[in-house]
Amino acid sequence: MALQRLTLVINGVERAVVADPAQDTLADVIRRIGLTGTKIGCGTGQCGACSVILDGKVVRSCVRKIGSIAEHSDIITIEGIGTPQNLHPIQQAWITYGGVQCGFCSPGFIVSVYGLLKENPSPTREEVRDWFTKHRNACRCTGWKPLVDATLQAAAVLRGEKTMADITYKVPADGNTFGTPVPRPAALAKVTGLCDFGRDVGEKMPPGTLHLAIVQPGVNHAKIKSIDFSEAEKMLGVVKVITAKDVKGTNRIMFPVGHPRAKTDGFEHPIIADEKLFRYGDIVAVVAARTEREARAAAKAVKVELEPLPYYMTVPEALTPGAMEIHPGRPNEYLRMPLVKGEDTRDVLSKSEYVVEGSFFSGSQPHLVIEPDTVQAYVDEDGLVTVQSKTLALIMPLLTLPPGLGIEGDKLRMVENPTGASFGSSVGPATCAIAAACTIATGQPVTLTMNYEESTWWLGKRAESYSNARLGCDKDGKITGFEYELAFNKGAYSEMADLLTATGIRFPGFGYNIPNVRAFSSISYTNETYGTAYRAYGCVQGYTMSESLVDMLAAKAGIDPFEFRYKNAALPGETNINSVPYKVYPHQRLLDTLRPHYEAAKARAEAGRKEGRLTGVGITISGYNVTGGPDTIAAVALELNADGTVTHFNTWEDQGQGGDVGTLMFTHEALKPLGLTLDQIHLVQNDTKTCPHTGPAGANQQQYMAGMATINAAGQLLDAMRKDDGSYRTYEEMVAGEIPTKYVGVHDTTPMTTALDPNTGAGDPTPQYNYMAFLAEVEVDPETYKTKVNSMKMSYDIGRVMNPISVEGQAYGSLTHSIGFALNEEYTDDKDHGSLIKCGFLFANDVTDDLELFDVSKEREVAPFGSIGCCEGFQSSGHVAITNAIFNATGVRIYDMPASPEKIKAGAEALKAGKELKPDPYFLGQDLHGFLDEVAANPINTDDFTA
Amino acid sequence: MALQRLTLVINGVERAVVADPAQDTLADVIRRIGLTGTKIGCGTGQCGACSVILDGKVVRSCVRKIGSIAEHSDIITIEGIGTPQNLHPIQQAWITYGGVQCGFCSPGFIVSVYGLLKENPSPTREEVRDWFTKHRNACRCTGWKPLVDATLQAAAVLRGEKTMADITYKVPADGNTFGTPVPRPAALAKVTGLCDFGRDVGEKMPPGTLHLAIVQPGVNHAKIKSIDFSEAEKMLGVVKVITAKDVKGTNRIMFPVGHPRAKTDGFEHPIIADEKLFRYGDIVAVVAARTEREARAAAKAVKVELEPLPYYMTVPEALTPGAMEIHPGRPNEYLRMPLVKGEDTRDVLSKSEYVVEGSFFSGSQPHLVIEPDTVQAYVDEDGLVTVQSKTLALIMPLLTLPPGLGIEGDKLRMVENPTGASFGSSVGPATCAIAAACTIATGQPVTLTMNYEESTWWLGKRAESYSNARLGCDKDGKITGFEYELAFNKGAYSEMADLLTATGIRFPGFGYNIPNVRAFSSISYTNETYGTAYRAYGCVQGYTMSESLVDMLAAKAGIDPFEFRYKNAALPGETNINSVPYKVYPHQRLLDTLRPHYEAAKARAEAGRKEGRLTGVGITISGYNVTGGPDTIAAVALELNADGTVTHFNTWEDQGQGGDVGTLMFTHEALKPLGLTLDQIHLVQNDTKTCPHTGPAGANQQQYMAGMATINAAGQLLDAMRKDDGSYRTYEEMVAGEIPTKYVGVHDTTPMTTALDPNTGAGDPTPQYNYMAFLAEVEVDPETYKTKVNSMKMSYDIGRVMNPISVEGQAYGSLTHSIGFALNEEYTDDKDHGSLIKCGFLFANDVTDDLELFDVSKEREVAPFGSIGCCEGFQSSGHVAITNAIFNATGVRIYDMPASPEKIKAGAEALKAGKELKPDPYFLGQDLHGFLDEVAANPINTDDFTA
Repeated sequence: MALQRLTLVINGVERAVVADPAQDTLADVIRRIGLTGTKIGCGTGQCGACSVILDGKVVRSCVRKIGSIAEHSDIITIEGIGTPQNLHPIQQAWITYGGVQCGFCSPGFIVSVYGLLKENPSPTREEVRDWFTKHRNACRCTGWKPLVDATLQAAAVLRGEKTMADITYKVPADGNTFGTPVPRPAALAKVTGLCDFGRDVGEKMPPGTLHLAIVQPGVNHAKIKSIDFSEAEKMLGVVKVITAKDVKGTNRIMFPVGHPRAKTDGFEHPIIADEKLFRYGDIVAVVAARTEREARAAAKAVKVELEPLPYYMTVPEALTPGAMEIHPGRPNEYLRMPLVKGEDTRDVLSKSEYVVEGSFFSGSQPHLVIEPDTVQAYVDEDGLVTVQSKTLALIMPLLTLPPGLGIEGDKLRMVENPTGASFGSSVGPATCAIAAACTIATGQPVTLTMNYEESTWWLGKRAESYSNARLGCDKDGKITGFEYELAFNKGAYSEMADLLTATGIRFPGFGYNIPNVRAFSSISYTNETYGTAYRAYGCVQGYTMSESLVDMLAAKAGIDPFEFRYKNAALPGETNINSVPYKVYPHQRLLDTLRPHYEAAKARAEAGRKEGRLTGVGITISGYNVTGGPDTIAAVALELNADGTVTHFNTWEDQGQGGDVGTLMFTHEALKPLGLTLDQIHLVQNDTKTCPHTGPAGANQQQYMAGMATINAAGQLLDAMRKDDGSYRTYEEMVAGEIPTKYVGVHDTTPMTTALDPNTGAGDPTPQYNYMAFLAEVEVDPETYKTKVNSMKMSYDIGRVMNPISVEGQAYGSLTHSIGFALNEEYTDDKDHGSLIKCGFLFANDVTDDLELFDVSKEREVAPFGSIGCCEGFQSSGHVAITNAIFNATGVRIYDMPASPEKIKAGAEALKAGKELKPDPYFLGQDLHGFLDEVAANPINTDDFTA
Repeated sequence: MALQRLTLVINGVERAVVADPAQDTLADVIRRIGLTGTKIGCGTGQCGACSVILDGKVVRSCVRKIGSIAEHSDIITIEGIGTPQNLHPIQQAWITYGGVQCGFCSPGFIVSVYGLLKENPSPTREEVRDWFTKHRNACRCTGWKPLVDATLQAAAVLRGEKTMADITYKVPADGNTFGTPVPRPAALAKVTGLCDFGRDVGEKMPPGTLHLAIVQPGVNHAKIKSIDFSEAEKMLGVVKVITAKDVKGTNRIMFPVGHPRAKTDGFEHPIIADEKLFRYGDIVAVVAARTEREARAAAKAVKVELEPLPYYMTVPEALTPGAMEIHPGRPNEYLRMPLVKGEDTRDVLSKSEYVVEGSFFSGSQPHLVIEPDTVQAYVDEDGLVTVQSKTLALIMPLLTLPPGLGIEGDKLRMVENPTGASFGSSVGPATCAIAAACTIATGQPVTLTMNYEESTWWLGKRAESYSNARLGCDKDGKITGFEYELAFNKGAYSEMADLLTATGIRFPGFGYNIPNVRAFSSISYTNETYGTAYRAYGCVQGYTMSESLVDMLAAKAGIDPFEFRYKNAALPGETNINSVPYKVYPHQRLLDTLRPHYEAAKARAEAGRKEGRLTGVGITISGYNVTGGPDTIAAVALELNADGTVTHFNTWEDQGQGGDVGTLMFTHEALKPLGLTLDQIHLVQNDTKTCPHTGPAGANQQQYMAGMATINAAGQLLDAMRKDDGSYRTYEEMVAGEIPTKYVGVHDTTPMTTALDPNTGAGDPTPQYNYMAFLAEVEVDPETYKTKVNSMKMSYDIGRVMNPISVEGQAYGSLTHSIGFALNEEYTDDKDHGSLIKCGFLFANDVTDDLELFDVSKEREVAPFGSIGCCEGFQSSGHVAITNAIFNATGVRIYDMPASPEKIKAGAEALKAGKELKPDPYFLGQDLHGFLDEVAANPINTDDFTA
């Protein structure tokens, strides 16, 4: 290894570094001298997380080979811009105006804005977005708008027009913080580059920690004949090559598919592939070496002999009669849930005035977070196998991994690292399982940080969906009946399949009053990467079908789609498709809020079309549950400290949504009688060793569940502290009185929820829903057929808003994800689809700055201070508003998401030729009515059924 | 390895760290997360370089096991106090008021002062020193006084009594910086913790760099029978165990003893011990492993079989007839230089009115720098074996190592790391040789940071000296004759023995007019650690003898010692003992300056003694050379850059004395016609690949040599730039005119120096000297006989002062080292003497705050802008002023340095019993006159002699 000595001026002082010119990038070197605020996201210059100022210019340091950096170059990193003790206005603005969600991209953005404002102290919004686009500053959380807002606020301070105090949050004079934009406690470290994300944690572990590199053959389906690592094991720095044989337990992730109709146990997922590769991203071996580079070099030298097998990437292929079982002994379609409401839809629809039908496909949306997957594992001082990961569900590995790893159930400890977002991709335990297996196999601490491609191939995606459906209405436009088949392509592994399948018989048609429904939702193994959680898990696919059909039916009935929805929006007393009442009925109110905007947009679209432009407007309504299924339990703990402060313990995982500030604000509100200031509340979070299980940060759950549990804990603590005269005991008095100072608060939804009936789909599994209406304006380029979303507007009812900046951040981000999903984000399992750009990531100028939110929330009765979760609903059906707008603009109905220019062009050209391109119904196994007849004939005894 | 996860609040933000509770200290963890401003010096809580604020208290983080740190502890490190963009007043004061010399201790001090001023915003000088003492903040450079000054200045700013501008250097309005306290360019990085010293460099090298640990058996003299590393080589992480067999060349440091009277070639020093161990600190093997801990663990498992040999720790033992040759084939006394001036002293002294005689010993002074030895080596991108070390003599390894390493002479490249001081201990190439051999043997980059004990055992020390001498004067007190035998205990290796021996016949009696001298200086191998450079190399030992004798003679003659010196101080035309004129004659002026202070001190001492206290005053005069020997050459280069700035290239090694600011100031002055601002001068220093050889930063050399070479280079550049009209060409005009823009300036002392005659010692090897007079006041405790130095005053003539803060810093530091040497610093080769404290390090309250300087310098004619070097002379004879003061206080003459309480007590008790404890003459081989007769009979033909 020939090294190079280089003297650089970094953050104002000369630093002499010793680098490896053959391998080191500028980012590597900067990070190695301790400046780990410069983050490595994509590693290929696509994301800008590694931005630094090099001789006055913003550059992406991850693609600057150190050999290309001139001696004595001047470099500014995030650490040179400001510190917690002396924030730069950009950093303060980022904190105050919602610049920080996960915060992984924040240092790169702040550095980039620093460069921008040096060149242009008074940029316009457009110039800011142009700069972000030019410098490839990628953010997946915020929807960009808050970043533009923050930039302009900082610029105003730098120009002397505002003060730092002006852009800094102040607690209201009355001390009431609930409903105000309290900044996130974690933001300070994130904007100053001092937050250690997983890669940073791994690089800062004690010397001797082994670095892991994965062997990912990149084959869709194959039998593993042999793995030869004899050469790899001899390579420099290699300590061990770990294969399935080294996994001490069953080598299976024991994640049950917990439904009486399931035809799989769900235990098909190997920790490390043993007999077969089931999908492109599967891992057959892991090299543990002294350095990441050594591990990667050796991973390339592992030889895997494979016998290719036929593979099925789609549900129709996997369900073709005679198709081989991907997991032998488990049928490819392994779960199907029936839905029956009202009268037989065959009769209803045959009698309806208007009926539309269609078959829909939605693609495999990649999460495209900026931080790739990363995990560390070690045995802790108490002998617990400890895994630090990005997980959003700390409890899940505890429940599913011990037998596979061959350890006792209580010997696993999970910790969430500061996480560069996941939007659901970190729900599963597979990454944790790999790391845990490797630390057990080597007896050493291990760290694994995948590169962006490996991570993209490895992690699950939003499941593809296939649906065949019909919807009818009467001559007045009142919906009469709805029938559909909705099949999820769950890919190679079944993890959380029951939950996903259930969403398929809950959300299609959500928000409307539909008296008669017949449907099934099914889920199948294929050789696609496995479907996993993604914001608005499972409902996105359903709305793809139902909100398109509603639009089609309105058109057929000759009713404005807005009015059609208004007319059919559920009213008090009406029920959802699971035959239970909607808990609240805000949909007409949501539409009323959007109505003037719709009218204006419609006028603009019509005017555009009169000019020959392809302009359109689209509308949808939808909602999503709060908590995923029935019988959900969450716990938190509150402890009074000796200094009068209070510590809150929970596992409200923070994926960027603000589990920290949520905990802080709930605690502040719940303990209001104690008069604590915000800084008198300490948070201990996301470590299963020290915190009670609060449940996963998914399904909109935590705002509601952690909030309720906090109120419960606070009530216990206040009761314990309260004296007869109504004043509160001090810590000393508590101790003197031998009164406990720590209380676990619990919330359990069991009394208020019921599981879906396995024979009818009737039931009420969640205690709350949130509700949205979306309005999209688009313009399609008549030459390229590329769609531009000109604006997205959303009205919502999410109960009372606790922290507006956090809520708005979720909303803007969700709208942006919806635009991406609608237009161009799609993952397929192949070599090409490893990068942000190849997966269709949208940069600043690819999405509109005109995102408008209308909060018409009303406080809920059974909810923590009236508030419930929001984020999942925000991404529920915005994508269909866009495809509906494309239809409005072009007359082309999008049956196949994403709505690529090619598809729109083909549709438009067919229309010109007087035809409509419409897919044939998908073959999804047994047909709907045959299935329902069989269910009716052979019902499951629900007395035995509890899940 | 069981790890522990810990959440700490560090510098205002929460950081979760993963630590090894069995091994990690708080310092390890802080440093591993990138906060390497927290330095590790002693590693045992003695030095405070690792100070941090833990929950509001200043603690030494290197001795706080991480397991003892409570979860959520609040920690402030140097990085949290201020940054280059936002300095804390303490940091600014440290820069401005001389707080930074080497700067290694600066972060720890600044953190400590931060803690102090939080508790006590208005401390007195005493309270500051008490705080430093209590918190064990150790500084070896500054003599503490500037640190107290800086603390009080910062406190004034924090109290609002001064502004930051008040304590910040400003370039004078006329732009003339010469003579003003320009801050050191390197100080900014050092006070903010951003300067990477060697350990930091090693820890930040590319992954795959091997960590070295040494095997140091700790035996004084032994034959190596076998080295068994079979077990060690199998240990976790071990890559290779390197022994002498792996060294590709001769395995000898080829450092010639270049004198015609030498009886050794000087090539006895193995790179890694092969046949024998010659001293306690010798290294027999080096373990290269993946981590330092693994290397250290394996080093303990290397089994070395030794055959103990007789060993000689003193010169008399080594020279006892029949003693074995330590290096077979080379006599133990291997160099002896004669000195003959004037008449035969046997006659002169027999006729003199007063004659005193005495035998003196001075001990092995340890350098006690705070940073232990550290080195890195790798092959660079051009195939050069590159070594980064603390060296003060970059050229030395180039000259002495290639054959031993088995590489071509031009394949070695030396770089000086930012250096936590050495005061001479880093002059030799032994550490560099080890690292180079290991990178060659392993083919990998390597880093070695010794712990404090290893480093102490490994590095050379100031050589012990033994002397027998007589000095006489006439009845008027005019010195008549001087004869002496001065033998240096050079220990195991001969490195720079010729230079050291030469000092032995140059500095005894320096400053006086002594007409007749007979002397020899000799040097011997023993099994003591080897003698190496230390500030005032070689003269300290001579003054120990001569300035004691002068005092004794004054007493015998009944003349006040001050007046005696004044009377004998050389006057224009008079010669030094080498029979050449002193170049300037400032000694009476120096004494005149001190006279009123002497009178006052004498009165205080007498008053004290009248009260029964043991108070005394002592005086000495002395001086030291500028450049070590004759025919010295230095080169620097100046280059005009495209932007009109100038870059200066040199190897003015910065050991804390300010090679950076010296270069800057000379360049600014020499290029004054160009009107450059200070920040338009760039420095590229201390890398032999890019910089011309400027010579070692020793022997007061660089101020004079680099200064002269700079003037030479600047003259060439200005000549090249100057147009006919007297204005200067721009860079563009130079390029257009095809005029070179880079010029190498050289200074060569050959024309103005002559070597000492090998038969008489006559000669003039150096172009300049500096001159000092010292005044010490002491009080000896009548119970414990512990000596307290109450004040040290020094007047000096060092030519014109270029940078007063730097000069004063050297002066204060030197006085403190002299106090240590006089009273309690002593190294012996054994297990106990590895630490600062065991070696007698003085903390803040152990030395006086009353250090007073009197600069009576006069500009020198042949010198760069009149200035010459200063630092060595500052440490020349202050220690004898102290022992003379002890005599004044107690009547006890110190013949044996250091003057420990035990020795003073023994002397005092003997006096009470009417006796004088006086050592017998040391046996130092052939006696003086026998030797001189032999020299006279067999003179060396000086026509053949050039060095």
